[in-house]
Amino acid sequence: MTVQVEAILRGERRAVARLLTSVENGREGVDETLAALFPHTGRAWVIGVTGSPGTGKSTLVNALTQAYRRQGHLVGILAVDPTSPFTGGAILGDRIRMRDLAGDSGVFIRSMATRGSLGGLSKATRDAARVLDAAGFDIILIETVGAGQNEVDIVRAAHTTLVVEAPGMGDEVQAIKAGILEIADVLVVNKADRPGAAQTVRALRTMLELGHPTRQAGMVGHHGRLMAVETQLAADDGMWLPPIVETVASDNQGMDGLITAIGQHRQFLSQGERRSALEQGQFSIEIQERLRDTLMERLLRQLPADALDGMMGRIQSREIDPQGAVETLLSQIIFTPLAP
Amino acid sequence: MTVQVEAILRGERRAVARLLTSVENGREGVDETLAALFPHTGRAWVIGVTGSPGTGKSTLVNALTQAYRRQGHLVGILAVDPTSPFTGGAILGDRIRMRDLAGDSGVFIRSMATRGSLGGLSKATRDAARVLDAAGFDIILIETVGAGQNEVDIVRAAHTTLVVEAPGMGDEVQAIKAGILEIADVLVVNKADRPGAAQTVRALRTMLELGHPTRQAGMVGHHGRLMAVETQLAADDGMWLPPIVETVASDNQGMDGLITAIGQHRQFLSQGERRSALEQGQFSIEIQERLRDTLMERLLRQLPADALDGMMGRIQSREIDPQGAVETLLSQIIFTPLAP
Repeated sequence: MTVQVEAILRGERRAVARLLTSVENGREGVDETLAALFPHTGRAWVIGVTGSPGTGKSTLVNALTQAYRRQGHLVGILAVDPTSPFTGGAILGDRIRMRDLAGDSGVFIRSMATRGSLGGLSKATRDAARVLDAAGFDIILIETVGAGQNEVDIVRAAHTTLVVEAPGMGDEVQAIKAGILEIADVLVVNKADRPGAAQTVRALRTMLELGHPTRQAGMVGHHGRLMAVETQLAADDGMWLPPIVETVASDNQGMDGLITAIGQHRQFLSQGERRSALEQGQFSIEIQERLRDTLMERLLRQLPADALDGMMGRIQSREIDPQGAVETLLSQIIFTPLAP
Repeated sequence: MTVQVEAILRGERRAVARLLTSVENGREGVDETLAALFPHTGRAWVIGVTGSPGTGKSTLVNALTQAYRRQGHLVGILAVDPTSPFTGGAILGDRIRMRDLAGDSGVFIRSMATRGSLGGLSKATRDAARVLDAAGFDIILIETVGAGQNEVDIVRAAHTTLVVEAPGMGDEVQAIKAGILEIADVLVVNKADRPGAAQTVRALRTMLELGHPTRQAGMVGHHGRLMAVETQLAADDGMWLPPIVETVASDNQGMDGLITAIGQHRQFLSQGERRSALEQGQFSIEIQERLRDTLMERLLRQLPADALDGMMGRIQSREIDPQGAVETLLSQIIFTPLAP
């Protein structure tokens, strides 16, 4: 075991920070380190936090972190920004707001932005979560800036996904976000002290019921009392129905209720083969992505440097069609399975 | 040349419809037909139309189609829905609204929904546009349901991309959509007769100016008069600055201005190597996607059936890490470049 790996396993902050930078930049040798750490992963609970800008996700992550800290957990935070530089400003402000966590050695915060491909960011985030896991952080929060498909792909690596809403975002926004409701394990209505919170809860409830027509969504008021226990009923017949939790994160309200809801989901997943099935699905997606990327990398190494460029000219002159070009390129490579 | 290919080239509707179904379902033999049609493509102007639900995209596509028809163009419409069944209802209503175009033999409308992967949908849409192109439709409108990353990927196949906005969608929505402004060649503020239209135009203008700090955006009022001609100035120094066009599509207002703006962008692209560079970039993305997919398909055919499943178990027990698993799987295959 290398000195670096030992330092990570002891949770040394500088070693963790350095490795995360290497992961983000895809530096050479990082694969070996990640391989050495991998047997020490799988202990953390990974929580994805997504939702539109303006819902107060960062404040929520902040408050939730403090609540988990009071329970003695070590918390890692990955703040992921899959948007382009054009919109990249917001996350900086969020990071500044998070400074009140910075003095706490039980918290590790890292921002991750798009460098190169989005697929790369999703891979880097997954690897970064494993580094924090191996370093002993037992709660890992992956927070995204927006709520688009990229964010959805990123939070897909989580055990429990929170989708954060806020009152007064209008019907249009609800429609946009309908797609991400599907990935929610827990729905959070933040800023629940604002006018319109009840309508937002009702709208979410209606949408959930459209998706699960036979029952009602569980709800947790922002003072942490359970308003309904359908969640448990849902768990009984093998279905998880996302509870709706009201919070006022800026006032630290509703955090107990939120932690309870996350805990219920964790308990639900630990029954039978559920957690194993979830992780198997996640590994399966990861392996296919890695296979695709690694294959492509090797292919490009094998092809003559000008093969692709030459083909492009022939396509533009309509001499060959795109799939024909691909077949021609691949006919220059032979795949041979090794004898078993 | 097969009978089918000849029928498509003559623009026979039933042959076109049948081939589009085959394209959507990825039926066997479709690659050969597409290859035979490919030399007859490249004549149509492909216009992507994206924007959040509620901005009136379908009505706009409807009105724009009628305006192009009055100019004698043949118009193909691909209405693409990359969302899941959970949110899939909206497009049906849109299709019903489009019925007033259905009697016109100079218009061909086709809805395309997600079957299988999103990558598959983006490929099918590109192929469908080529079929319509070969069939003689010289204006092709690709309309998406929402405004997420998937929609962005889909409209990336267009020559000119319209991003549609509407008044009164609030700041939150503006923030969400900042990312898609980058792909806009023309910004359309639809429902421009509603309160708040001027603010929406101002907000878009501000966002554009943030992206292009040295100049102001061109604007076209919804009665079709040019309110500013910075567009042309922008073109002069090699940059395209998206003009903002106001429309009231439900009243057929602003269509002339919109067609003018699209025409200006077409003119801009036809200068020098711009169009060729755009298409080369698009073909390059397409080839890489097709290479990736074809490679993966062949690899999975070469690997023993249980190789992937077996690896999954070893990953879950932390016996091997994901990248290690990929390397092991690929070590079972030899790539040999053919001698040149």
